Order: sequence, then C-alpha cells, then structure tokens
Amino acid sequence: MSVTDDPQAYIASIGTALPGDPVDNQDLAARFGIDPDWIEVFIGTRTRHFAVDLDTGTPRQTLAELAALAGHRALAASGVDPDDIGFLVLGTATPDALMPATVNLVADRLGLDHLPTYQLQSGCAGAVQALDLGRTLVTGGGHKAGLVLGGDVCAKHLPLDQDFSRMPASELVNFVLFGDGAGAAVLTAEPTGARLALHRVLNLLTGLGREPGQTVEWFGVADRTSDRQPIREDYKSIEQAVPVMASETLWELLDAQGWSDDDLDFLLPPQLSARMTEKIVAHMDVPAAAEVSCVADTGNTSNALPFMQMARLLDRIETGQKAIGVAIESSKWIKSGYALEKV
Amino acid sequence: MSVTDDPQAYIASIGTALPGDPVDNQDLAARFGIDPDWIEVFIGTRTRHFAVDLDTGTPRQTLAELAALAGHRALAASGVDPDDIGFLVLGTATPDALMPATVNLVADRLGLDHLPTYQLQSGCAGAVQALDLGRTLVTGGGHKAGLVLGGDVCAKHLPLDQDFSRMPASELVNFVLFGDGAGAAVLTAEPTGARLALHRVLNLLTGLGREPGQTVEWFGVADRTSDRQPIREDYKSIEQAVPVMASETLWELLDAQGWSDDDLDFLLPPQLSARMTEKIVAHMDVPAAAEVSCVADTGNTSNALPFMQMARLLDRIETGQKAIGVAIESSKWIKSGYALEKV
Repeated sequence: MSVTDDPQAYIASIGTALPGDPVDNQDLAARFGIDPDWIEVFIGTRTRHFAVDLDTGTPRQTLAELAALAGHRALAASGVDPDDIGFLVLGTATPDALMPATVNLVADRLGLDHLPTYQLQSGCAGAVQALDLGRTLVTGGGHKAGLVLGGDVCAKHLPLDQDFSRMPASELVNFVLFGDGAGAAVLTAEPTGARLALHRVLNLLTGLGREPGQTVEWFGVADRTSDRQPIREDYKSIEQAVPVMASETLWELLDAQGWSDDDLDFLLPPQLSARMTEKIVAHMDVPAAAEVSCVADTGNTSNALPFMQMARLLDRIETGQKAIGVAIESSKWIKSGYALEKV
Repeated sequence: MSVTDDPQAYIASIGTALPGDPVDNQDLAARFGIDPDWIEVFIGTRTRHFAVDLDTGTPRQTLAELAALAGHRALAASGVDPDDIGFLVLGTATPDALMPATVNLVADRLGLDHLPTYQLQSGCAGAVQALDLGRTLVTGGGHKAGLVLGGDVCAKHLPLDQDFSRMPASELVNFVLFGDGAGAAVLTAEPTGARLALHRVLNLLTGLGREPGQTVEWFGVADRTSDRQPIREDYKSIEQAVPVMASETLWELLDAQGWSDDDLDFLLPPQLSARMTEKIVAHMDVPAAAEVSCVADTGNTSNALPFMQMARLLDRIETGQKAIGVAIESSKWIKSGYALEKV
C-alpha cells in the first residue's frame, strides 16, 4: 500500500527549538562578503538560526541538545504522562555521530529509558517518515503514545574559513539556504491535547532510474583527505521536479481522504526556500487553503520543517478544519505528505 | 510496551552477501605486520571479508551493492512476488553517504519503486531494530510483505596507510575484529518459503545515565581536519556489560514467550568476536540450545550478523523447533533480540 489507512493516531502537541538569535540577511551578507539583495531576490529567506558560531566555526549546540529541547517542550505541552511514552523516533540527515545514534542521547537528556528508539537517516522527507513510523507504532505496535522528532544542524557542512567573494553562486547558496533547528510531536492513540488527527501519511520513494538531485557525503578517518565533492545539488532538476511532485502528493492525499480541494483549510507546502516555496504553492493551486510556511524566518531546517509548520498551524486551526502537509526529498526523489484534522 | 506482542510476521527467506575472498589471519597479520597468534588468542576470528582493497585502501564494493546483492538473493529464495514487497528497511552504521539514504539506492538496484523506505542509523542492534520495524509494518501497516536489510562496510574507518607495528593493541583490535557484509530477509504476513515465525522482537534502550561503550564519529567538509578521536571503545565496560545484558535479553524473551530454556533448540548469540561470543554463551548458560554463530568466519559484520546467523539456522531448524537471537549494542547500551519458530 502506498498510503497507510485508518486507524489513526493523534498529535497531542508540538515543540520546536531554534539555536541562538536570528541571523538576518544584512548580518549574513556582511559575514560572507556578499550582496544582501542577492539573498532577498533569489532565496527570499529573511532570517535563520545557526547552532554554530559563524565567526569561529565552533559548534554551540549539538543536534541532541536541540532535539531534546524540542522534545521537552512537546512533552510539557502534551499533558501526556512521560511513563506512557512508548518509543522515540528521530529523523535527521546530520546525526551528531554515527554511534551512538543521536536519538539515544536525546532519550538520555529527557530521562527516557527502557523503550525502543529509531533514528531514520533522511533528508527533507525525514520528518514525514518519522511521523509515518510513529503513526504505525501507535496504531499497530500497541503503544499509547510516543515522541517523534526531527532536526538538523549543518556545522559539519559549512566550511567558514574561505574566501566567499570568489565562491560561485551555486555553492554560496548552501550557506544562505539552510538553518539549524529541531522539532518534536507527541503522538497518541486517543485524542488529547491539541487533538490533531493524523489521518494518513504518504511516504513514497519515486526515484527508480533517476539521478539523485542532491548528494551529501560523510568522511571517516580513512578518507578525510579524499577530494570527492562533499555536496552536490542539481538545482535545475529540483526546480523542475519538486513543484510537480508536490502537486501529485497533495492530490493523492486529497483523493485517498475523499476530500476535495475546497475541503482543505490549510496547506503546509515544501520549504526549500521562500522563493521556491512561492513557486511550489502557485503550482499546487489550492487558493482556498491558507498557506502555513516558516522558511522565510527559519531557513531550510530540513527534518525540523514540518514540525515548525505544524507549530504555526496549531495557533490557527479550529475544530473540524483540515490540513495537508507536503515535503519532497530531492536526494533520491521521495514524495511525502500527511493529512490532518482538528477533532 | 517493551516487547511487541502477537500478531506475528514470518521470515520467508534470508539472503547474505560477503565481498571478495576470505582474508585469513596469516594474510591479515602479514598485511599489518603483527603476530597471527595474537589474533587467534585474543579475537579468535579465523577469516573475514573486506569491501576495500587492503593494499590500496580503494573501496571495491559499496554498501548499496552488497545490500542489493543480499536483497536480491533473499527475494529470489522467498517465492514472493516482487510486486507484493511493500517496503524496504535498512539498518546500518556506515551508510555510503548521508544523502541519498543508501536504502534508496538498494531499491533502485532491485527495481523497486513507489514504496516507503526507511534507513535506521544503528550499530549492532540495527538488524534487530530493522526486523522490529519490518514486523510492525507487516502486522500493523497493512503490508503483505517487505524486505528488511542490514549491512556495514568499514572502508571509511580503516586508515591503511600507517605504521601498524607501533599501534597499541587497543587500536589494532579495530582492524582485526570487523568484517564487511550485508544480509536481508523477506518478511511476510502469512507463512511461506522458510516459514520462520517471527514471534516477538525485543528492542530496548537501556542507557540512561550510562557512558557510551562505543562512539564512532563522522566528518563533514567543515571539520575534516578536526583532531577529535574518530573511534572510541571502552572494552572493559563492553566485556562486563554485554554478557549480562545478553542473558537478560534471552530470559526476558523466554519469559514473554512462555518458553522454558529446555524448549529452546537454537541460540543465536551476540557476535562481537569469536572469543567474546564464547564468554557470552557461557554466561547465557542454556546448554540444551545449539549455538548458531558466524563471527569466526565473517568477523563482526555488525548490522549483517543476525541475517548471517539466520541463514545458518535455516539449514538446521526443523518444523516446531524454536530459536532466540540476541544482539547487544554497546554504543548507548541497547538490548535487542527476537524469538523464532519454524511452523
């Protein structure tokens, strides 16, 4: 089955964590010696947060710290007894280390033990994969509740000791597109707290025979001096494919739910950058649904994004209203999305 | 719940893949300029396979290639229609890249598309976590069948251009303990093929407040020159804790199944090294159960080990016979195990 069916799980609460103060385009442009208007025109993101000191390159917070903070906030807001938390799932592209998996350090910080933990290695679809797994564990795994997390920190991918004035725009974009952060949701088997029914999750690899749109390498002690390119992106493919895949995901979810586009109150679209999100939303073409985006304020926080969008959704959604969220992973082309309703 | 209950899934087939020819202790000792008797006495492993050329350090096979080969063999042996494969799960500590997740490249090689994929970042408990997730997806996620994989390749962690004669034993052990490989299992909702009922999976973080027994770092382009220690192991803690945790896991599974130790026909114990496995098996103390181990021939292949043990089990187990497998992850102290019965 491509789309999971009822029974459903419920989101009781959302927590998020952003490191430090927001870095605006003036600050960022000054740090990298570039034109702030270029960021405004081509990226459209106004602010982002970094878990690394931009002057020294020193990490200030780990993913474990940020995810634990988001998890703590979600747990506190949920009203769920911590003893009822039956599992942890973390989606990330940037774990603090390969071992221990960061999710176990998050559990340690939250005082959670004697429970299964899962860490999904994933890019932009990772938070939805984590929701998918969390939903399956609540509905089919006999758990009353569980904590689902997502987050990324890009310190290991941002070499700050270079001459940015000579860097081509295709590389510079990686320094202005992303931000660091984490998010969390408490999932429950019965409605409580925010009472957001997670009706359905779509999580589909659609990459057969397609070249990856994004590749991110890691290095071990044996290949640290390798000259293979650490990050490769095919922005042409991404610009072409993501709006189409986002629309397909939306309509597949609407169809599976038996909802028309008029039934949809809120749309949580992909958050590549503020400008790309504008183009994607235009292509998705559901003008009756109010857009819930965060990327202009947070940057692309990858596995944290859907949680940050859902945190904003919770401030606006009323009982009986419906929402669909969509995230597209361009690495090997994964369509992912979820259907929500406040009950 | 610490231990998942019925309904159960079934293992229809197992496939494994080992790269190249076995490397024996004479070859390994000659390559590193060490005493082969030291390997025999302290590690006890006779042979292992490497996906990297030991002379040049050049990788010969990727994890995606090995896992796809194991997956292909499992699919071919299962008798399951590939169209019925509803998901892929891969457990690994050593993905080929951070993005795309290696599981998606495995899917590509197997011609699988339009299905959910999950990649679990994990050490020695990863294969069991993958079985746990696969079992939940089959029993609670509406899937007829799915492919569960595990594997590791250590090329990025083996710096081969050094003077091994001056390396302390505590570091040298990492060059003789591990091997590369991958394994796979086709899981089904109804018994077919090998008809191995996966009654129960135990997957429990038990690391609250405990220092990690093993840490493995990764480096990005920004921190490649960092001097932080890439691999740290506390073999004293591991030697003390793993036999105890393995026994606890065994007895918790027996108890949950309502099996006595006399009911148990086979034991698939943790496979740290041949010598450590001997000590663990002695501590587990179920002499009526026949031991099924592979580590003396394969080395510690981490996320591939349980599949390699189950491949050997399939050659021996008769209808009605029972087996329990145990894997302990010393990174942040995870107890994991599974209860099998041929039906």
